[in-house]
Amino acid sequence: MPETFDLGRFALESGASLPARLVYATQGTLAEDGGNAVLVPSYYTGTSESYLPWIGPGRVLDTDRLFVVVVNMLGNGVSTSPSNAPEEVAGPRFPLVTVRDQVRAQRLLLDSLGVARLRLVLGWSMGAMQAYEWAVSYPDDVDALLPICGAARCSPHNLVFLEGVRAALTVDPAFDGGRYTAPPVAGLEAFGRVYAGWAYSRDFFHSGTYRELGYPNVQAVLDGWAADHAALDANDLLAMIGTWQSGDVGRGRPGGYEGALRSIRARTIVMPSTTDAYFTPADSAIEASLVRGAQLRPLVSELGHIAGRPGIRAAETTGVADRVRALLVC
Amino acid sequence: MPETFDLGRFALESGASLPARLVYATQGTLAEDGGNAVLVPSYYTGTSESYLPWIGPGRVLDTDRLFVVVVNMLGNGVSTSPSNAPEEVAGPRFPLVTVRDQVRAQRLLLDSLGVARLRLVLGWSMGAMQAYEWAVSYPDDVDALLPICGAARCSPHNLVFLEGVRAALTVDPAFDGGRYTAPPVAGLEAFGRVYAGWAYSRDFFHSGTYRELGYPNVQAVLDGWAADHAALDANDLLAMIGTWQSGDVGRGRPGGYEGALRSIRARTIVMPSTTDAYFTPADSAIEASLVRGAQLRPLVSELGHIAGRPGIRAAETTGVADRVRALLVC
Repeated sequence: MPETFDLGRFALESGASLPARLVYATQGTLAEDGGNAVLVPSYYTGTSESYLPWIGPGRVLDTDRLFVVVVNMLGNGVSTSPSNAPEEVAGPRFPLVTVRDQVRAQRLLLDSLGVARLRLVLGWSMGAMQAYEWAVSYPDDVDALLPICGAARCSPHNLVFLEGVRAALTVDPAFDGGRYTAPPVAGLEAFGRVYAGWAYSRDFFHSGTYRELGYPNVQAVLDGWAADHAALDANDLLAMIGTWQSGDVGRGRPGGYEGALRSIRARTIVMPSTTDAYFTPADSAIEASLVRGAQLRPLVSELGHIAGRPGIRAAETTGVADRVRALLVC
Repeated sequence: MPETFDLGRFALESGASLPARLVYATQGTLAEDGGNAVLVPSYYTGTSESYLPWIGPGRVLDTDRLFVVVVNMLGNGVSTSPSNAPEEVAGPRFPLVTVRDQVRAQRLLLDSLGVARLRLVLGWSMGAMQAYEWAVSYPDDVDALLPICGAARCSPHNLVFLEGVRAALTVDPAFDGGRYTAPPVAGLEAFGRVYAGWAYSRDFFHSGTYRELGYPNVQAVLDGWAADHAALDANDLLAMIGTWQSGDVGRGRPGGYEGALRSIRARTIVMPSTTDAYFTPADSAIEASLVRGAQLRPLVSELGHIAGRPGIRAAETTGVADRVRALLVC
């Protein structure tokens, strides 16, 4: 069952502050020496529940041995977000929460749980961005790092992709600068349709893999993404885009991006999807080359970015499980 | 100077008909034996003028030796299009014009010019789709074929990308099902912003190549694409998307897509950009393998799909010129 951690008035990098609560879930039992804690930050449009396919006895994250903490990032609609925040910071008044802010908030949560160090931090997509930021912010407290289809910063091409989906949503006048009283459904649907082309890959559509995911045809993929996004909150989606675009382990740090990656002490496996259109294998290769001793272990898949989504398919789940096992054996 | 060819009441594949005119331009002189004609069909948002950087004495298409015909495709805003058609077929009433319709219209134009066979048909992007269709529709009359960053059909991933830009435009209520009286500027701008992420590549943004193209930063790329598209006609843009999505040399032909490609008799060089996100090198490799004797000669470039745009940059122009030369030497 999800629990709540009150951050009080949480000071943000921007100078603003946010009356904030983190909603999180734990499974397993923290060892007496505290050496079995694993942190999994949520991803874009995901929640702590989204990681459930990986978590449990005998699963990717084996709760017979590990203490797994899954955190909803601020802005995701479950932790404090535009859609559920107190009036003063609700909707379009919600401040920018950076990836670094998210990680600092998660650190306070772990302190409250008595977790001083992490055996492993991992995540998919924006979860991977937060994992990188963890390993840079707290290099002495992270034993192992597994970023899956993610990056240590939002690349310029990734930023352009996000500006596209943002534009498709905000062109709907019903969005009204975030002050909508009813959901801007047309904008949300356009957002989903634009996103669908990025989430998968040429090979996914070429191979007809969408049928394995329950879509009878290509139009059903588009319509499914439109419908899924119509059910989400527009300001939450944009708040998380702000977080995503803020991601950069090097920002404001001596040595910048390269220096930050070189400062990581965690045993690291970098796992891009071979067909990811925005968290690209090329960027992952660079990042793996900058983290001392890191292994680049791509997930060979035609699923595009979606390859790393928890529970997506048995082959990809096995790939993730193999890397987790490699990092936990030491 | 552009000239006009009246197609009369042009019968379309769909069964509809269109009172249609092709606007085209020629340079050079048709040889007495008719053996030096080159056809270049226009591309998405391009006109016959867009190819000018390639055309002239000593250029990629050397008009001291070649008779070059550049045709504006129907729907592009210059030839008969939603924005300039007679009232009965104007705006949202404009019928679907398939790639095959375009090619048939161009054949009638060439007949009127006394061109019975083509030494070469080439084009970039949608121009390449029309070039493929030429080589399949008239296998005995096309000596050489050079599709640049294009394909013989619109792949399902390409279709999904196009549905994304369509959605970003049509979500603007000012579009009003195509019955707008003033341009749906917000929708057109969103269309341009979404498109920008697809037109280039990860490497383009990573390398900062946008500065070579006159964009000082990434935001300027987005704003430039938004402004460029705000100046275009929404119904024209959607008519051309319809044409694009209709592209398939195999549709309705015995043997389908593979059979159609195997039926090509033209000497063929298939030239994808190595970083094209929607007319992908993977699709080009398949198509090159299906055309008898075809060579796959990728244009190595970080410019993404834009690599093949006429006049984009000296290195890419040289690449195109080399392939043209290889096809014309015989």
